[in-house]
Amino acid sequence: MTITTPEGFVANGIASGIKASGAPDLAILASATGMAVPTAAVFTTNLAAAPPVTVSRRHLAVTGGRQVAVVVSSGNANAATGEQGRRDAEAMCALSAEGIGCRPEEVLVCSTGLIGYPLPMDVIVGGIPELVAGRGAGAEHAAAAATGILTTDGGRKEALVAGPGFAVAGMAKGAGMLAPNMATMLAFLTTDAAVEPGPLADLLALAVGGSFNAMSVDGCTSTNDTVVLMASGRAGPADPAALAAAVTEVCADLAGQMAADAEGASKVAHVRVTGAASDADASRAARKVAESLLVKCSFNGEDPYWGRVVSELGSSGSAFEMDRVQVTYGGVTVCRAGVAVAHDAGAVRSHLAGRSIDLHCDLGIGDGSGAIMTVDLGHGYIDENRGTS
Amino acid sequence: MTITTPEGFVANGIASGIKASGAPDLAILASATGMAVPTAAVFTTNLAAAPPVTVSRRHLAVTGGRQVAVVVSSGNANAATGEQGRRDAEAMCALSAEGIGCRPEEVLVCSTGLIGYPLPMDVIVGGIPELVAGRGAGAEHAAAAATGILTTDGGRKEALVAGPGFAVAGMAKGAGMLAPNMATMLAFLTTDAAVEPGPLADLLALAVGGSFNAMSVDGCTSTNDTVVLMASGRAGPADPAALAAAVTEVCADLAGQMAADAEGASKVAHVRVTGAASDADASRAARKVAESLLVKCSFNGEDPYWGRVVSELGSSGSAFEMDRVQVTYGGVTVCRAGVAVAHDAGAVRSHLAGRSIDLHCDLGIGDGSGAIMTVDLGHGYIDENRGTS
Repeated sequence: MTITTPEGFVANGIASGIKASGAPDLAILASATGMAVPTAAVFTTNLAAAPPVTVSRRHLAVTGGRQVAVVVSSGNANAATGEQGRRDAEAMCALSAEGIGCRPEEVLVCSTGLIGYPLPMDVIVGGIPELVAGRGAGAEHAAAAATGILTTDGGRKEALVAGPGFAVAGMAKGAGMLAPNMATMLAFLTTDAAVEPGPLADLLALAVGGSFNAMSVDGCTSTNDTVVLMASGRAGPADPAALAAAVTEVCADLAGQMAADAEGASKVAHVRVTGAASDADASRAARKVAESLLVKCSFNGEDPYWGRVVSELGSSGSAFEMDRVQVTYGGVTVCRAGVAVAHDAGAVRSHLAGRSIDLHCDLGIGDGSGAIMTVDLGHGYIDENRGTS
Repeated sequence: MTITTPEGFVANGIASGIKASGAPDLAILASATGMAVPTAAVFTTNLAAAPPVTVSRRHLAVTGGRQVAVVVSSGNANAATGEQGRRDAEAMCALSAEGIGCRPEEVLVCSTGLIGYPLPMDVIVGGIPELVAGRGAGAEHAAAAATGILTTDGGRKEALVAGPGFAVAGMAKGAGMLAPNMATMLAFLTTDAAVEPGPLADLLALAVGGSFNAMSVDGCTSTNDTVVLMASGRAGPADPAALAAAVTEVCADLAGQMAADAEGASKVAHVRVTGAASDADASRAARKVAESLLVKCSFNGEDPYWGRVVSELGSSGSAFEMDRVQVTYGGVTVCRAGVAVAHDAGAVRSHLAGRSIDLHCDLGIGDGSGAIMTVDLGHGYIDENRGTS
């Protein structure tokens, strides 16, 4: 049942007609009682944030982090739509609230899809009452919701972790490796643990930093990225550390599913940097390598071109000493002290031929470490992203 | 004659055997008298700078900016080659100095090609005496030098500007849009104007900032990038402003030739940002757009996906207000005040179908402006960069 497995939640998803294909395009997640529950959210840092983000931020501030529901539309991002977009996002909340019987500010809203087109509000206005009325806690409701948020995804992305006395579940859509023209990353999590809004926001921020934010496909930050976590409290108080670990695990699981669902990519690469002057230095260096077009092309070509990796490390802005760097593919070190070393080239080739690449760079300077997950860059990415039509 | 057109210079280029293809791979540019002349250089900021860069920096410091020659090898970057690489770079200078009859420190050295392989010093040691002995001021010498520095370039890149009473010439190889695995950008300029090393360095830095540094192909900074300017003084003192303008013009001309020589790309795009809070903000925003994989894919697909452009502007780190942004392709505004506006879609399509794209973003905030030249991202780039072999 996933998103409704933690007690106290209902969900639904329907096809309203936003998508020409007739695929599901509206989803809702709500507290089962219709009463507000502690809710936390992390939004995109993009200053071109879409109206649904602006509206959700405002609603969360108004309620002090106590929401009843989040309504989601897919196929159109309601981004770069100005004042009309803000009115449409507010209308989606108001309509949902009317169906549930709560205040509009108690509803958050997310949209995902193409940027720059007004929402087709006629079909959305027609669909939301049916969406809300049909909500439930069954497996079919959870699946419908997890389907209704998708765009070009290959399938539903769901995760569930059982903690001591509580559960955490999640559903997601995205991300960039699919078709970044619809690159929004959305994730919705539920837990039956009892947590106040403040601590809930803290632990969600930590979990997102260690999962979704450690994934880089193309260095682009969507206008609509949103992660929401609702806590029903049905299971009572939970051990804070165990809860934080479970939320992080669900986020990491969903992030991994996003990377694996790679229409436009053929490989997932884990770029790890150790021995950096600080964790921040390590993360910055790992991100520079992971976002390098040349390194991503070399993953696609299964070419252990460590010279380019070293070049990216050297221009990352992090402390770097050429004579100390070591580069290792799949456990086989190809560069030590900044120069080529004899190694088992067959083993490296065989590792790079797989779907999952492990690239480990040790800077030999300090104790800082960090990692970024990315994908290769091949024809598929370009074919997915050459045009919007 | 180009690089030897300004009086007081000799040059040469030969095939020594570094390249398996047998193409020219060694070049030299020297003062005609064998005496040191004021020389300025701008090097890569990459902390993984290659041994030739390290050695040239040191030589320039030792002489106080007075050099006799610069020797160049192509096909192998002598990068990530450690202590051996430093010895090899020093040996190239020493051998050249021996042939010319000057001190090794009076010679600069550049290499370009693959990273991580020791230089084949046997063939280089064999080739340099012939290279030096054959130097001359003729057109054939200039052409041989301009050919000897190339890697995957489609042809020689040369430029010449006649100022009032002086001349500035240049030759270059690169850059990233060709095959960034050999992405080093090298440029060598000569002038017969009389300028002391200090002012010469200042005007070169300015010229590079307004030309090569305003070009971004893939956001990668090579380990070997170098620009050298030598001033023979034969023409006597020049008007400083006129000289600076001429040097900038030569650099911009060479940068344009690099962008146009785009095996792996089909279009050159000029991304201009105006109305920014500052020039720095404008340049940062233009670079974020120009380096966006999604925007580069949309250029390739001739798709005016301004929503993604706006998203990049919003996440650039520069001051941005969604409701003020305007986006214009080839003079046709497609987004005003952050939302779509009715426009001549046929005119936009027709502009994007050309080889040169003009994308103008006005942020509507202040007076800052900046521009970056880039290329599209298509299959060709990937095919060029999947492997080193």
